[in-house]
Amino acid sequence: MTKKQAANKKDNWRERLHEVIYEADTPTGKIFDVVLLIVILLSIIFVVIESVKGLDPWVYDFLTYAEWIVTILFTLEYIARIVVIKRPFRYIFSFYGIIDLLSTLPLYLSLIITGSSALFTIRALRLLRVFRILKINRYIGEGNKLMVALRDSRPKILVFLFAVVVLSLIFGTVMYMVEGAESGFTSIPASVYWCIVTLTTVGFGDIHPITPLGQFIASLIMIMGYGIIAVPTGIVSAEYSKASRKEIVNNTQSCYNCNEKQHFNKADYCHHCGYKL
Amino acid sequence: MTKKQAANKKDNWRERLHEVIYEADTPTGKIFDVVLLIVILLSIIFVVIESVKGLDPWVYDFLTYAEWIVTILFTLEYIARIVVIKRPFRYIFSFYGIIDLLSTLPLYLSLIITGSSALFTIRALRLLRVFRILKINRYIGEGNKLMVALRDSRPKILVFLFAVVVLSLIFGTVMYMVEGAESGFTSIPASVYWCIVTLTTVGFGDIHPITPLGQFIASLIMIMGYGIIAVPTGIVSAEYSKASRKEIVNNTQSCYNCNEKQHFNKADYCHHCGYKL
Amino acid sequence: MTKKQAANKKDNWRERLHEVIYEADTPTGKIFDVVLLIVILLSIIFVVIESVKGLDPWVYDFLTYAEWIVTILFTLEYIARIVVIKRPFRYIFSFYGIIDLLSTLPLYLSLIITGSSALFTIRALRLLRVFRILKINRYIGEGNKLMVALRDSRPKILVFLFAVVVLSLIFGTVMYMVEGAESGFTSIPASVYWCIVTLTTVGFGDIHPITPLGQFIASLIMIMGYGIIAVPTGIVSAEYSKASRKEIVNNTQSCYNCNEKQHFNKADYCHHCGYKL
Amino acid sequence: MTKKQAANKKDNWRERLHEVIYEADTPTGKIFDVVLLIVILLSIIFVVIESVKGLDPWVYDFLTYAEWIVTILFTLEYIARIVVIKRPFRYIFSFYGIIDLLSTLPLYLSLIITGSSALFTIRALRLLRVFRILKINRYIGEGNKLMVALRDSRPKILVFLFAVVVLSLIFGTVMYMVEGAESGFTSIPASVYWCIVTLTTVGFGDIHPITPLGQFIASLIMIMGYGIIAVPTGIVSAEYSKASRKEIVNNTQSCYNCNEKQHFNKADYCHHCGYKL
Repeated sequence: MTKKQAANKKDNWRERLHEVIYEADTPTGKIFDVVLLIVILLSIIFVVIESVKGLDPWVYDFLTYAEWIVTILFTLEYIARIVVIKRPFRYIFSFYGIIDLLSTLPLYLSLIITGSSALFTIRALRLLRVFRILKINRYIGEGNKLMVALRDSRPKILVFLFAVVVLSLIFGTVMYMVEGAESGFTSIPASVYWCIVTLTTVGFGDIHPITPLGQFIASLIMIMGYGIIAVPTGIVSAEYSKASRKEIVNNTQSCYNCNEKQHFNKADYCHHCGYKL
Repeated sequence: MTKKQAANKKDNWRERLHEVIYEADTPTGKIFDVVLLIVILLSIIFVVIESVKGLDPWVYDFLTYAEWIVTILFTLEYIARIVVIKRPFRYIFSFYGIIDLLSTLPLYLSLIITGSSALFTIRALRLLRVFRILKINRYIGEGNKLMVALRDSRPKILVFLFAVVVLSLIFGTVMYMVEGAESGFTSIPASVYWCIVTLTTVGFGDIHPITPLGQFIASLIMIMGYGIIAVPTGIVSAEYSKASRKEIVNNTQSCYNCNEKQHFNKADYCHHCGYKL
Repeated sequence: MTKKQAANKKDNWRERLHEVIYEADTPTGKIFDVVLLIVILLSIIFVVIESVKGLDPWVYDFLTYAEWIVTILFTLEYIARIVVIKRPFRYIFSFYGIIDLLSTLPLYLSLIITGSSALFTIRALRLLRVFRILKINRYIGEGNKLMVALRDSRPKILVFLFAVVVLSLIFGTVMYMVEGAESGFTSIPASVYWCIVTLTTVGFGDIHPITPLGQFIASLIMIMGYGIIAVPTGIVSAEYSKASRKEIVNNTQSCYNCNEKQHFNKADYCHHCGYKL
Repeated sequence: MTKKQAANKKDNWRERLHEVIYEADTPTGKIFDVVLLIVILLSIIFVVIESVKGLDPWVYDFLTYAEWIVTILFTLEYIARIVVIKRPFRYIFSFYGIIDLLSTLPLYLSLIITGSSALFTIRALRLLRVFRILKINRYIGEGNKLMVALRDSRPKILVFLFAVVVLSLIFGTVMYMVEGAESGFTSIPASVYWCIVTLTTVGFGDIHPITPLGQFIASLIMIMGYGIIAVPTGIVSAEYSKASRKEIVNNTQSCYNCNEKQHFNKADYCHHCGYKL
């Protein structure tokens, strides 16, 4: 075996592993993704259960062992990801590289530093890792369609949400002046918080007006919130409807003469150059 | 009367009863369904009233008698259903077969085992029996149309609800880290529960943030929930709108003369060139 | 003046008053309606203020006088309505006739029977009288359009609301079994009430689950409620959209040959008989 | 330099400053607007922070200094606005003129009158000044489109909100009669307030029914509120959808050859017969 062949073989080995870890086209790559997804979901369930107090002690013991197994698996995966990639630093400092590190480290830190168990909840960041796997497969299923609909109406919804925030600021200040500290409107931020709670029709009830004038203004805010909830709905609905309509218009017809691609389904002649379709 | 005739007669008798009990095409079958519906609804009302404490003692006495009558009627119906069907085990182990049994048994059990009254609420399962009757008649009324609209938008709504659950998990964990146990965010499951309560704009107020940072994040969650409530509405609205449009105009008719394709369903002549369709 | 002329004159007088009181086509009729509307609204404001405790004593004195004036005006109107109509009993036993009587009587009863002030709130029924006046003018403004849109989608919305009630019954019973009396789920009706509060995303918080399983089921109910809120919105939206589309289709064109009235705006020939439009 | 030239020069100077302050077409005018926007937003943040109790004393000291700087800047701006305009009184008594004065005065008043710090919150009115700047630039971005959609559906939404208020009055009175003072329904206004809180699905929980009948009526109100929330949404959605449809297809183009009227806005040739438009 010559040196070149050995290098080739090594590259081949790395390339194949790269395909398994970073892609999802081959059967092995798909199995890797599914196994990783299960391990991540399991580890999230462990983190969630661990946060519950008052369970039997053996549960916490079991979780500690399970946590160590998951962490070692993640460590191996992290090392593999660095080894098989051509530019390791690009991965290490990428968004998912940092997430991967942050969701592995806390347990090791607990060995060195005592009392670092407060960092344990950082492991919940593992949930974000799920998106990497879903991202690869995002062209499957309805999710993609929804994302398009949301992306198209995003600027309008952002403008709308900005308006909601401004309204909350104005009415929050008014309620702060009207109600005062006894009813919980202790400061303008608290008032604005209450106003958002009310405008979005959540209504916790931790803070609520007690003076007649405050209740009157609150009624106005609520009716207003009820009226403007229609706006984002209307936008998304119309955008979605437009996208469906596009389906009717967008067909595979394209003019042989000028290559214009948007035709009515019933069109016989290109509307751009008059050429017979 | 020969043996065959007797068998025939018996089969006839079973067949006719089968028609009455399992179908709703004949007048007798319809009457049976309506009577059964009334008895089921009455028995549900009895179960509901029985759960209320502090009524006059005679009410509970009356309910006991009424319950026995209903249970005996249901027992007779259950036996009849087994007798008239050709493959009784298929019925017994079917969904409705088990429901039928479960909604009849508890009272008999109370005779044998003392203290089994805790099982009494299982009788509320009788409500599910209503669906069997409605299922037969589901082609009547608007319900069917609604079911179609919902079924068409189900995959999209499921994807959306999955997104809501993931968001709740992420923000629930964040709130657990930010707020801590004093404000009621005692564990991640409790935090996720709070997050769902907030995202869906229900807002019980049993748990609510008290730190400024927690209130700020809660505000973001609420505004986000307010913004994304538009998505399922938009979807259903667009689907429903598409279905309505289809009804009016989309048909396969096309003019032989000018090839115009958009015609009313009732059109006899092309609206464009006057040619007979 | 002959007897007939006198009768005629009297009839004329009654007819003119009938026109003023029961119709709104003449200027005097309109003025009468507007004055009546103001008096009704004033009297409702009086009833509302009177229900507030802890005001200055002179306010209650003033309200007593104002109430007497309003009651006498309503009495005169009631008598006038009976006098000018041809079949007085038909008015007296009509819906509005009974409302008119009920909103006038309580004050007189307080003179005869002591302690009948509990009946005073019945005067709030006067609000219903507003609808009579608005009913006459309902063909003006946007209200009519809205009523049509609501009427068209009523059967679908009723089916939907029925589904909401059935879901509340099922989940209310489940929550009653899961949670029990400590968390406020004292009976099935109370549980169903809580379930409606939750499904409609109101969320008072007077009753709320405290067991983990209860909170889990509650989360499911909330997400479900969030998902199905889309249904009535989608229905009304699509109905309204359909009505708008009709505007595009419904034009004043009608075929000279067959009198068919529904044509596309772009139609050149009647789609029904092929006659040139 | 003649007198006329001097006057011209002065006018020129005033004119240029007018352009900078009142308009946003020139680069200097845009910079002025952006700087003003930042100062206003900063001053609002100062007012918001100042309302929070329990911060370090140096924060309040810093805010006092910052407040003086902002107030002096606003005073200079106010004087400049009066100087450069031709009809100063028209500005002074305009809506924004009064807002400008009210958001500048409170600090000066605190020097003369002791204990006028209660007026300090009036400075929050500065938020309204933001709209003047946004108003000039409102033709940029999505805001304009949204405003059009809202303006078109305003009459319908107002009619709808009026219906919500009437319903609240009726059901508020009913609940006042049914529940009474123990559950918080102390007066008709309080009941109406509760009814609005419930109908709009906010649900604070400060007031809630406790009697079975009250809970039953409350359930009806909630289901009704859930059903009618669809109305404004449907309206806005349909209006918005109509506006979008108009943009794409509705134009006045029609083919000279075949009279086909539905063309893309960008179409040059009839899609039906190929004739040049």
